Amino acid sequence: MDKVYEVEGGIVAPLGFKVAGYGCGIKKNAKDLALIYSIDPCVAAGVFTQNEVKAAPVVLSELHVKDGSIQAVIANSGNANAYTGAAGHVNAAEMARLTAKELDISSDMVLVASTGIIGEKLPIERIKSGIKVIAKLLGDGPESNEDAASAIMTTDTVAKSCAFEFETPEGFVKVGGIAKGSGMIAPNMATMLAFLTTDAKVSAPILSKVFKLAVDESFNSITIDSMSTNDMAVILANGMSGIEIESSGPRFEEFREAVRRVCITLATAMIKDAEGATKLIEVIVSGTQTSDDAKKVARAIAQSNLVKTAMYGSDPNWGRIIAAAGSVNVNINPNTLDLSINGAKILEQGQKVDFDDESIKALMDLPEIQIKLECDVGQGTAKILTSDLTEEYVKINAHYKT
Amino acid sequence: MDKVYEVEGGIVAPLGFKVAGYGCGIKKNAKDLALIYSIDPCVAAGVFTQNEVKAAPVVLSELHVKDGSIQAVIANSGNANAYTGAAGHVNAAEMARLTAKELDISSDMVLVASTGIIGEKLPIERIKSGIKVIAKLLGDGPESNEDAASAIMTTDTVAKSCAFEFETPEGFVKVGGIAKGSGMIAPNMATMLAFLTTDAKVSAPILSKVFKLAVDESFNSITIDSMSTNDMAVILANGMSGIEIESSGPRFEEFREAVRRVCITLATAMIKDAEGATKLIEVIVSGTQTSDDAKKVARAIAQSNLVKTAMYGSDPNWGRIIAAAGSVNVNINPNTLDLSINGAKILEQGQKVDFDDESIKALMDLPEIQIKLECDVGQGTAKILTSDLTEEYVKINAHYKT
Repeated sequence: MDKVYEVEGGIVAPLGFKVAGYGCGIKKNAKDLALIYSIDPCVAAGVFTQNEVKAAPVVLSELHVKDGSIQAVIANSGNANAYTGAAGHVNAAEMARLTAKELDISSDMVLVASTGIIGEKLPIERIKSGIKVIAKLLGDGPESNEDAASAIMTTDTVAKSCAFEFETPEGFVKVGGIAKGSGMIAPNMATMLAFLTTDAKVSAPILSKVFKLAVDESFNSITIDSMSTNDMAVILANGMSGIEIESSGPRFEEFREAVRRVCITLATAMIKDAEGATKLIEVIVSGTQTSDDAKKVARAIAQSNLVKTAMYGSDPNWGRIIAAAGSVNVNINPNTLDLSINGAKILEQGQKVDFDDESIKALMDLPEIQIKLECDVGQGTAKILTSDLTEEYVKINAHYKT
Repeated sequence: MDKVYEVEGGIVAPLGFKVAGYGCGIKKNAKDLALIYSIDPCVAAGVFTQNEVKAAPVVLSELHVKDGSIQAVIANSGNANAYTGAAGHVNAAEMARLTAKELDISSDMVLVASTGIIGEKLPIERIKSGIKVIAKLLGDGPESNEDAASAIMTTDTVAKSCAFEFETPEGFVKVGGIAKGSGMIAPNMATMLAFLTTDAKVSAPILSKVFKLAVDESFNSITIDSMSTNDMAVILANGMSGIEIESSGPRFEEFREAVRRVCITLATAMIKDAEGATKLIEVIVSGTQTSDDAKKVARAIAQSNLVKTAMYGSDPNWGRIIAAAGSVNVNINPNTLDLSINGAKILEQGQKVDFDDESIKALMDLPEIQIKLECDVGQGTAKILTSDLTEEYVKINAHYKT
């Protein structure tokens, strides 16, 4: 897919989208309200948290995506509007209603997202005033992109956005996006928000299919099963490029790749921004009986605090990797395992290779570590992204709320 | 069960047991070999790791326990003899054989346990010489107990032993034990070893039943599912008190309670000794549809790094507790949850109680924190013990091997 290139512009790279970020006073001295708007109504697809406790905005947005076309997203940070009872649902609906009113569209064309502290009432009056202001700040320049990306941050230390495009004989198709989410990801719960835009002309079923595949390879390969109450990833397609995406063929593949690249770029940025993290860790498991098995093993390795601390310390403590792999109920054979760390062989057919600790350590001092485990009992494969576990992570999370 | 009392003596409190600890050179300047011996052959019961990758000594000991009576346990620290191929099995058998020879018993009456680094060959020559020495050091005084308990330590900072007894009209029955295991417990894998002794006269089926129940309430409530390659808990009963335990009745209950108390005391000591831990955290979940559900929810809370760091920071961040509870696929209703921390109500029927942050924080500064979640949808209950997550944990584990 060398036809898909990264481009500038972030979420407003695709034609016809405008965004803004504003500080309405939920947080002290920081932007906390983001608005995404498309000139034309959009086809939309979304993936929402599986948590038993769903925040009010998630419930509302899931309904709106199902119901049909979408033209705007209003998102706030600083307060998750989760576990807020009936008032929470009223407030989420109120955010949609007020946004719709300012943009002169219908309420059910607005998605709502919130992230921040759980269980505190939303300061709806501030948001009300904020929506009136932010609707007038919409723009499609780099600053607007940056403002919107910043406004959804919580413990994130950098704003996250990117865009990719591909060329067709009839012109360009762009896919862009912004996201928030950092360390409190796998094996834990932190809100992950991702908003993607595209000017492709695409039907809801095709968009949904492409997006689910991309989310699975990206956001779902980092947050794993333990979703927060507020997780949400949505994509809006306004068709303004005029270029239609069919259900198969090279154009479909290019579109799929562009969406995939945006999702993976944003997911990787989240991992890199993980609280206190110093390294990106990619766990690749292959050769299990099924891909589900591979996923279980990869997760077990990626979620192990012992593996994560060893990676932090550049310690080739492969015993912890094997112990984690064996801890899940998956058929693996100790005598057929091949293990490598950043390309250096550690185990071959279950036998320890005579490696030099110091040279492996040097490889592990790199900012990205790849752990590859080939099990040789089948064809299953999976890949999970995670980060190392550091003292800084503990420091940040011991006192997040107060 | 006010008839069951804690007593001195540890693993040698019961009649007829002798133990020793010795440094044979696997570790530098520390004891690394422990021997437990009973004057009479014992009925034995054991619980062994469920990890797909089982260390050689575990495979051997599991067979020996199944096969019948046991008279000795030889255990080393510093090297796990795990993931060591065929040589590992040969070495484990060799440890049993040499121990049997020194004690003039048969090899299959010896259990073998190892803990330490995974994947390195056992320095069997040192162990051979060590066994010859240690067999001559056996004793039943407090120093012998301390030596044996110390010799199985790895990252443990304190030796762990205890004993309980109960009185019957015919005399006393004692249960004692030593254990090792510290921080690298739930949600991770660290080797947990526990050796219990008793002078009760008890059949294998009754002993097995009592021990499994006790292990479930203690060691299995901390190590959870993620067992290490080397986990093992065994109990030896030599009958030397002459007091018989029937399959039911008050004596059975007292025996059960004594075994339970030894296991819980040792398990609690492990949690308190968790690497870098500053607090013992007890998670009690009740009112789920099934006890399995309660266990899932309790585990999710206990395994959450976000909950564990909040406990460390004395931060009543109940949102993290609820998010963790909701992250597993269990039927709970957000509107019927009651949550308390050290007795202070936080949520009542899903509504946040108007509590004072500072007074809750003060309660959370105590060395033991109890998190109680009542779900009000059924009768399921579960209890899980864990510890807080601190910068010190990361520091210790980032450089354990090297």
